[in-house]
Amino acid sequence: MPPLAPGVIICRAMPPAIVVHGGAGIYGDEALPEAVAGVAAAAAAGFARLRAGGSAVEGVLAAVRALEDDLAFNAGTGAVLTSEGTVEHDASLMDGRDLSAGAVGALVGFKNPVAAADEVRRASPHVFMVGEGAARFARERGLEQVDPAALVTPKQRAKWLAERERRLAGLAAGAPLKHGTVGAVALDAQGHVAAATSTGGTFFKLPGRVGDSPVIGAGSYADDAAGAASATGQGEAILRVTLTRAAVDRMRAGASAQRAAEDSIEELSLRTGGEGGIILVSPRGELGIAFNTRRMSRAFCGLDHPTPVALIER
Amino acid sequence: MPPLAPGVIICRAMPPAIVVHGGAGIYGDEALPEAVAGVAAAAAAGFARLRAGGSAVEGVLAAVRALEDDLAFNAGTGAVLTSEGTVEHDASLMDGRDLSAGAVGALVGFKNPVAAADEVRRASPHVFMVGEGAARFARERGLEQVDPAALVTPKQRAKWLAERERRLAGLAAGAPLKHGTVGAVALDAQGHVAAATSTGGTFFKLPGRVGDSPVIGAGSYADDAAGAASATGQGEAILRVTLTRAAVDRMRAGASAQRAAEDSIEELSLRTGGEGGIILVSPRGELGIAFNTRRMSRAFCGLDHPTPVALIER
Repeated sequence: MPPLAPGVIICRAMPPAIVVHGGAGIYGDEALPEAVAGVAAAAAAGFARLRAGGSAVEGVLAAVRALEDDLAFNAGTGAVLTSEGTVEHDASLMDGRDLSAGAVGALVGFKNPVAAADEVRRASPHVFMVGEGAARFARERGLEQVDPAALVTPKQRAKWLAERERRLAGLAAGAPLKHGTVGAVALDAQGHVAAATSTGGTFFKLPGRVGDSPVIGAGSYADDAAGAASATGQGEAILRVTLTRAAVDRMRAGASAQRAAEDSIEELSLRTGGEGGIILVSPRGELGIAFNTRRMSRAFCGLDHPTPVALIER
Repeated sequence: MPPLAPGVIICRAMPPAIVVHGGAGIYGDEALPEAVAGVAAAAAAGFARLRAGGSAVEGVLAAVRALEDDLAFNAGTGAVLTSEGTVEHDASLMDGRDLSAGAVGALVGFKNPVAAADEVRRASPHVFMVGEGAARFARERGLEQVDPAALVTPKQRAKWLAERERRLAGLAAGAPLKHGTVGAVALDAQGHVAAATSTGGTFFKLPGRVGDSPVIGAGSYADDAAGAASATGQGEAILRVTLTRAAVDRMRAGASAQRAAEDSIEELSLRTGGEGGIILVSPRGELGIAFNTRRMSRAFCGLDHPTPVALIER
């Protein structure tokens, strides 16, 4: 296992503040500039909402929508494909004010799954909706639909074709790929926190597979009394340790955000051997970032750092 | 809010031991005998497996299958209907030995959803599968299919017809109903723990709605290092506090199983206003049961109590 992240350069930000991630894992060197630019732009988009008086929920929504629309990330347009060559999205959002939450799993045909998750939170009696039922709800609520084929980029199509060839030839799965799940955590000027996470899941997943991203307590968690968290990485491993709830509970018990992030990733490593990363913000503006992969694209802004600080290396 | 459960009569059992629940909520007086008989029979079925040398996973599977096949409970055959008059099952199972877990959400057309959840755990690279993709996986693995209409009992059909009449007449939703989700936790002779939970969800739910039952950390959690838990109640509220992971973490931190159960239900009440119940077993054979509803059907067996002790009142 690689050493844990040494921590962000700045471990505290003046509210409002936002941290975003664009996935932990192995990035090809050619992908670094676009990943860094993408997380910086998303952090700036979320921070602009916060600075204009937007709530933490509005901040994470703006940031995650930007990442979903950026073809460089495994979310929204440009998501990885299932074993059938299709796109199935998972997303969640949680509001630390009242623990209200919304999530969608195995959603087909929507441009911004995080907006559908927020719609479940705001406009349904439920927290979590999946598959065709989720799509029907999102359609009825007027969420922006898109031809599923329009979500498939040429790059992802080529990757899928190559992997299918490998499997048809009886070869094992290809090299491990980056986990480009995206997410954001924010602290608004009123002291409220929120978290959101969105993904296309794991490459070549079985149709109907749901990962950690839409699961409250695994992919996203937010509680004004403790902090907010968003995770990325091997979804099955993250689910088994309820990574974000565990990290938020560490902050609740008094750990700093950075310590909570590192201890949670260590638990993920030790208990499951899984790879992943997490971003945290506390109600006092502490930031925490940790990952046990080679790289994780991430960026943050605070009132004292209005220009995004974006990183991908340790 | 009603007072918390005063605790079970016996708070410790000699392994192997099993605790089952058949749902927390308002039971009509006429339903009490069949609910008590059902949880007793399920506990006996699970205990028989454990006593014959079965693992904790085998024990909870046997108990939950029995409850799914019992028409008195909201799981398997006899589950409540969606707003469309259909049955959609959610289920999960977790093995405390290795934190391996499997879950299905919005599954249509299978007699024993908990067996499908275990199949996801054992035979897929995934933890959580939903909707048509989950059904396809379960079919391919040879799980017992059933005509979806055969899962609908005359009693549930009549309840659905009455509710639909109410809604068509513009009336508000009917009286709150029992949450008949079923579940089991077990401790085997080797000291391993497991948890399983299965449900038809909430009555008149939107198609595609997933509750807490299939969510690892909400409906079920098991970790040999701390204990096992299964929850029942208002799924949306339980999801928001990741009830079973929170309860298991309380045991991890040193709380007795009964204290962990009571504190977790208190957190559910205070943070969400939601109703629910939980059953716990620790690796040392401590039992914990708590609920904030009027009644919860539950039963337990241990080597020192081979005949099930079944209760429904406080």
